[in-house]
Amino acid sequence: MFIHSLSRCLRTSSNSCLSIEIKRALSNGSFVRQLFEQTTSTYTYIIGDEKSRNALIIDPVITTVARDVQIIKQLGLHLRYAINTHVHADHITGSGRLKTLIPECRSVISKSSGAKADIYIENGDEIVIGDKNQGLILECRSTPGHTNGCMSFVWHKGSSVFTGDCLLIRGCGRTDFQKGSADTLYTSIHQHIFTLPDHFTVYPGHDYTGQTTSTVGEEKRHNTRLTKSRQDFTQFMKELKLSYPLQIDKAVPANMICGVLPES
Amino acid sequence: MFIHSLSRCLRTSSNSCLSIEIKRALSNGSFVRQLFEQTTSTYTYIIGDEKSRNALIIDPVITTVARDVQIIKQLGLHLRYAINTHVHADHITGSGRLKTLIPECRSVISKSSGAKADIYIENGDEIVIGDKNQGLILECRSTPGHTNGCMSFVWHKGSSVFTGDCLLIRGCGRTDFQKGSADTLYTSIHQHIFTLPDHFTVYPGHDYTGQTTSTVGEEKRHNTRLTKSRQDFTQFMKELKLSYPLQIDKAVPANMICGVLPES
Repeated sequence: MFIHSLSRCLRTSSNSCLSIEIKRALSNGSFVRQLFEQTTSTYTYIIGDEKSRNALIIDPVITTVARDVQIIKQLGLHLRYAINTHVHADHITGSGRLKTLIPECRSVISKSSGAKADIYIENGDEIVIGDKNQGLILECRSTPGHTNGCMSFVWHKGSSVFTGDCLLIRGCGRTDFQKGSADTLYTSIHQHIFTLPDHFTVYPGHDYTGQTTSTVGEEKRHNTRLTKSRQDFTQFMKELKLSYPLQIDKAVPANMICGVLPES
Repeated sequence: MFIHSLSRCLRTSSNSCLSIEIKRALSNGSFVRQLFEQTTSTYTYIIGDEKSRNALIIDPVITTVARDVQIIKQLGLHLRYAINTHVHADHITGSGRLKTLIPECRSVISKSSGAKADIYIENGDEIVIGDKNQGLILECRSTPGHTNGCMSFVWHKGSSVFTGDCLLIRGCGRTDFQKGSADTLYTSIHQHIFTLPDHFTVYPGHDYTGQTTSTVGEEKRHNTRLTKSRQDFTQFMKELKLSYPLQIDKAVPANMICGVLPES
């Protein structure tokens, strides 16, 4: 297959490039699988440890739980935790349904969210799958502003951060509901996300433009909202005039109790 | 930030896991950025070389060219090639518009597609950006069946394959138009995709279920179509009874000439 014909080779004039082999995580380490829910443009993430096959899921959506469970089963994963970055207003979390289908799975959310879960996390906690030195570790960072209970998760060994609705690609979460605060969000992003290395991959909670990932460096340079001054940012967020969240009256009560729909 | 409290640490009972650090390509090598076009559920890929900042794009869509050009500019990339895996029937390629906006960019498609482009490729060719030994290299594999001119691109150093509409996640492209052939597609996938290492990431041309990537090993084991016998597969594809492609009469003539809309 490796017929290399110089005459046919498509080659640029640059001699300065340096390609370094990508170590694909799936082959022998930890891996992340990004999934999308189209109605609310929500990203769900399955993060697994190749050796032990233990896994966790971040921000599952109730309507795509069947898909996610199928992937988990096909990959031979043991789902340990269903983690929500915050109490979502636009969709119902899949945590409750996942716990029903996979009894060993425990739900996780921040203590400050006030929502019900099996395990509550706070700033500085670590979520560990496997051995502390060799396993998969997510550092929990409290990043309120979109809601008062938002958390971001830093996967240092994966050079990644899962930002939920705190930092989005070239944007950020709205701050006009659920005890949101533009001033607080500005602090959260600048102190807890933008202090990470520039090359860290940003895995957002949503994207509405077909983008899947970004990097910390890109957002520091090109996020039109977060490159503003604090004063200009808070003023901008105040003037957004966004429409009332379609599902908020149904989603928030449900998400306060792990996505279990309340009895009517 | 790294307060590790054993009492609060969420830990599984497994001691056997082994986490190997992911070498994030963006930091110091080559990288891929996956993009999505929601109307036709099409994936576009920008692949870049960090050092030289040279890049190529696979399967751009005309309606998302503005987004893609903005990303290319923000990342400081020099777009060298706009590559189509095949003549698309569901959307108009962005190649022509990209060439207008970025004059240094050249369009690329297979010779067997019969479509117009600046550069024609055949099975076994290599698309190289930068130095042959250190740069970014895509191996071109002829994988007809969805159309007679389909190509897949293997990025060996990235442990990845871009399959266009040949192999999809748990599925494959239809074979009832554009000189398609289920028998030929079966051969293409088994001979040219399933012979790659199991851990290679599969980057498909579409997904309709919110999945972004798969692996060769997963598809060998769990693709319900391709795990059938050749005979059962061809029969299955024959009986699919899919509706007539909505945009085919507009898209194919346009895509035969680089996505430039014909004069009315």
